[in-house]
Amino acid sequence: MYRLISELYPICRSITGDGLRQTLRRLREQIRLELSEVPTGTQVFDWTVPKEWNIRDAYVKNARGERVLKDAEYEVCIDSTLEDGHLTYGEYFLPGEIRGEVLISCHTCHPSLCNDNLSGIALAASLARVLAVAPHRYSYRFLFVPGTIGAITWLARNEDKIPHIKHGLVLTGVGDAGELHYKKSRRGNAEIDRAVAHVLQHSGQPHKILEFSPYGYDERQYCSPGINLPVGRLSRTPHGTFPEYHTSADNLEFVHPEKLADALTACLTIFSLLENNQTYMNLNPKCEPQLGKRGLYRMVGGSADAGLSEMAMLWVLNQSDGRNSLLDIAERSGLSFDSIQKAARALEEHELLRKDFKSVPQAAR
Amino acid sequence: MYRLISELYPICRSITGDGLRQTLRRLREQIRLELSEVPTGTQVFDWTVPKEWNIRDAYVKNARGERVLKDAEYEVCIDSTLEDGHLTYGEYFLPGEIRGEVLISCHTCHPSLCNDNLSGIALAASLARVLAVAPHRYSYRFLFVPGTIGAITWLARNEDKIPHIKHGLVLTGVGDAGELHYKKSRRGNAEIDRAVAHVLQHSGQPHKILEFSPYGYDERQYCSPGINLPVGRLSRTPHGTFPEYHTSADNLEFVHPEKLADALTACLTIFSLLENNQTYMNLNPKCEPQLGKRGLYRMVGGSADAGLSEMAMLWVLNQSDGRNSLLDIAERSGLSFDSIQKAARALEEHELLRKDFKSVPQAAR
Amino acid sequence: MYRLISELYPICRSITGDGLRQTLRRLREQIRLELSEVPTGTQVFDWTVPKEWNIRDAYVKNARGERVLKDAEYEVCIDSTLEDGHLTYGEYFLPGEIRGEVLISCHTCHPSLCNDNLSGIALAASLARVLAVAPHRYSYRFLFVPGTIGAITWLARNEDKIPHIKHGLVLTGVGDAGELHYKKSRRGNAEIDRAVAHVLQHSGQPHKILEFSPYGYDERQYCSPGINLPVGRLSRTPHGTFPEYHTSADNLEFVHPEKLADALTACLTIFSLLENNQTYMNLNPKCEPQLGKRGLYRMVGGSADAGLSEMAMLWVLNQSDGRNSLLDIAERSGLSFDSIQKAARALEEHELLRKDFKSVPQAAR
Repeated sequence: MYRLISELYPICRSITGDGLRQTLRRLREQIRLELSEVPTGTQVFDWTVPKEWNIRDAYVKNARGERVLKDAEYEVCIDSTLEDGHLTYGEYFLPGEIRGEVLISCHTCHPSLCNDNLSGIALAASLARVLAVAPHRYSYRFLFVPGTIGAITWLARNEDKIPHIKHGLVLTGVGDAGELHYKKSRRGNAEIDRAVAHVLQHSGQPHKILEFSPYGYDERQYCSPGINLPVGRLSRTPHGTFPEYHTSADNLEFVHPEKLADALTACLTIFSLLENNQTYMNLNPKCEPQLGKRGLYRMVGGSADAGLSEMAMLWVLNQSDGRNSLLDIAERSGLSFDSIQKAARALEEHELLRKDFKSVPQAAR
Repeated sequence: MYRLISELYPICRSITGDGLRQTLRRLREQIRLELSEVPTGTQVFDWTVPKEWNIRDAYVKNARGERVLKDAEYEVCIDSTLEDGHLTYGEYFLPGEIRGEVLISCHTCHPSLCNDNLSGIALAASLARVLAVAPHRYSYRFLFVPGTIGAITWLARNEDKIPHIKHGLVLTGVGDAGELHYKKSRRGNAEIDRAVAHVLQHSGQPHKILEFSPYGYDERQYCSPGINLPVGRLSRTPHGTFPEYHTSADNLEFVHPEKLADALTACLTIFSLLENNQTYMNLNPKCEPQLGKRGLYRMVGGSADAGLSEMAMLWVLNQSDGRNSLLDIAERSGLSFDSIQKAARALEEHELLRKDFKSVPQAAR
Repeated sequence: MYRLISELYPICRSITGDGLRQTLRRLREQIRLELSEVPTGTQVFDWTVPKEWNIRDAYVKNARGERVLKDAEYEVCIDSTLEDGHLTYGEYFLPGEIRGEVLISCHTCHPSLCNDNLSGIALAASLARVLAVAPHRYSYRFLFVPGTIGAITWLARNEDKIPHIKHGLVLTGVGDAGELHYKKSRRGNAEIDRAVAHVLQHSGQPHKILEFSPYGYDERQYCSPGINLPVGRLSRTPHGTFPEYHTSADNLEFVHPEKLADALTACLTIFSLLENNQTYMNLNPKCEPQLGKRGLYRMVGGSADAGLSEMAMLWVLNQSDGRNSLLDIAERSGLSFDSIQKAARALEEHELLRKDFKSVPQAAR
């Protein structure tokens, strides 16, 4: 991720133009990105795709025509164009077992800033590569879009896809030294909101959960009242609250490989939770089943299965009445989702539990 | 208000009788009060209008028939009557655009006490004078009634009017040096409860919000289970918790003009909030509308409209899906109702928002 | 209770066998316990009634065949049987005015432990004796069962009785020096949960309320998802958190007569609350009724009825709209259930209140 950031850092990006294209082409070397070109003037909801802005050249020349900066008198030239063209964005769709999707969105427009948002781009690209080779129930959709106008353009052109989005994350500013911050979706208690909170709480690391507000990055569009998707935002130090924000000090020294790696781990843990957060039915709901005769009960001086928690099994059995998902059970018990999920799997293998398909929303299949 | 209190202070008031009449007649010089005379013996719910009590004369005489108090031996005379008569109360109705009403009630029976409740009487009279010349959507009903029996009598004689009362305040003890205390209605989360809490919280002044209890002033009657009106109580230091309570020390020195004025401001702010607390629909709900092309976005080195908050606009747009009133939005955002309302007005002027009349309760029209 | 514990302490108990029978027979001298014998091999839900385990003899002999322990060399003999037989449990049913029942359950299987659970057995037996001679609306069912398998056996054989159980308590470990701990039922806000919390809060003694968890005593079975009864657990120091737990130090010195007595008082107060927790209708719901003319209002220098609280009367009148039980009113007012109940009784006598039978669940009659 850090190497990718280093390569993309010198490119002159904006919300349109060749810098943006160059950035997306570089990403296409890693993931099978599909590029869209939307012509200037296209109406996207209340907005219009703007003209393309390109820099041909820019320099400061002294009186002798030399490009320097030492003399008292000099000529400044910025040779740019603002003409009809296109807005470019990249999209990568990874189909899963069900039509329900997880949306990962990052903005690709900021120039010469490493944390905001080359870190988000690099994290999204790595997630795409990892998930492409891992089994997954959900479909995953990655959007690499210029901020605001790009997200609006995608939503305006893909209204039919919106109902399939079950969870989503906007990724931005994930490489600085600060702790992870999750900003809740407009809904405030969506499954993604609870999943991220659970993962961060059980990470053993300092973190913060922020309430939704309509200011910020592209969650503004995904959480507008007519879209209202369960999309939150994962960042480290929030925008605008650190001195390097939107200055040349947001450079390669401001982002840290280990912080990027830690954010990757957090995202994969979150997606794993969503993948496995199902609702089960206890097949032996009247009184406890006998765990001992099935080898599921701790033995004197030993334990049933390595890492299998008896408390987790008891919680899963007690709460699996078709109304509680594994995340519900993890939250009520205070145990980690991981231990709850392991318990559910062991109980399912011993035919004490079965998935309750009725509780899976129709639209998510 | 302080001058009115000074004039009313010497009058010998009780729940019936000429002192009460004299008090109401003085108020009639300021507002077009309609006086009702309810005969002794009239049944009002579980109660009966009592006999009228009047003082003709009262003195202490010495042995020589002189009205003094210096001698060791004297004669005390209180020449009073307790006879069939009437219970008197005053009512002032200010019609608005809709039938829904705001009730303002104060008790008029306490003798020789400035704070309890000449302060409430003076505040209600001032509110009536201000509202009479201000535009207002709601109708306003002011009741000047003897405590308990007066409120019961009005309710018993006006059951048909009860359904029109949408919000209400009992005003009492608002002139002392203490901070404002609001006691919630029996419902606990009525619009009036939330409106007063919001106004006090944003006043920048110390204050307290008290839970409902069935003890106190005439909110006891308005909040009885068969009436159950959304009527709270606004006071300063609560009754019974200060040494001057119900003693001759509750005199002209105990009430302060600036405290009366401050209570008047609070009430007018509360009523303004109720008047303007409407629900809007975002007419551009899919993604954010483009504020810039409408001149609503901050410019570099300046601001769009003086006093117009971008955050308030974003919150109003984000939450205006027909389910959230402006007060809901103010509460969720933490911004003042005033800034939210200004934002809504600006957005309405730019046709980004319209009032959602469906969300106005039928009965309130 | 302490004497009963002393008598039962030497008996060699287990989940089956003669020690268990001997224990139950001793209880039958105090209460009309009905004994059930369930044959080995009987299927009870997921479990099977086990073989009976009996000790014939056990000793340590030295080389000369003397039963001592002083010599260096000796012979140990435990002469026991594990054969087909029965699982024994005791049940005492005390019919009330209605079919709705209160379940009191204690486990009878632990050997040579005073607190766990001779204290629970002794408390349940005393409750049975007291309630047998006291008027009571509910029926009461006392179960003296071996832990886990006994509760499961009873539930499996009495599924038809489960719907009649309205409230329940598992009693265990109530004799040690610690404070009372109540563990909530799976439902978490059942009437029994709120009743116990209220009684402990108003006891003036330190105590703790624990959230439900699926680990513990027989509440595990009563609160399994297919049974889901409103059954909580009353203990003192929770199992596993004190060094004497499941050791020979849980002896006659570890339990205290005054702690047993205090637990008895708490239980009787809880049952009294449940017995009296009814919903009333205010017969004079519009404005307050006139308490004075009925002698219910405090007089100068005195009070209406000894111990009758005016505030409690006002709260009962204000909240009795058919939606609030006396416990609801006690909780909202912060007053004790006792004072609320006394107020309700006085108001009922003065025909200001009547029981709202509609609000009593059909199944409880």
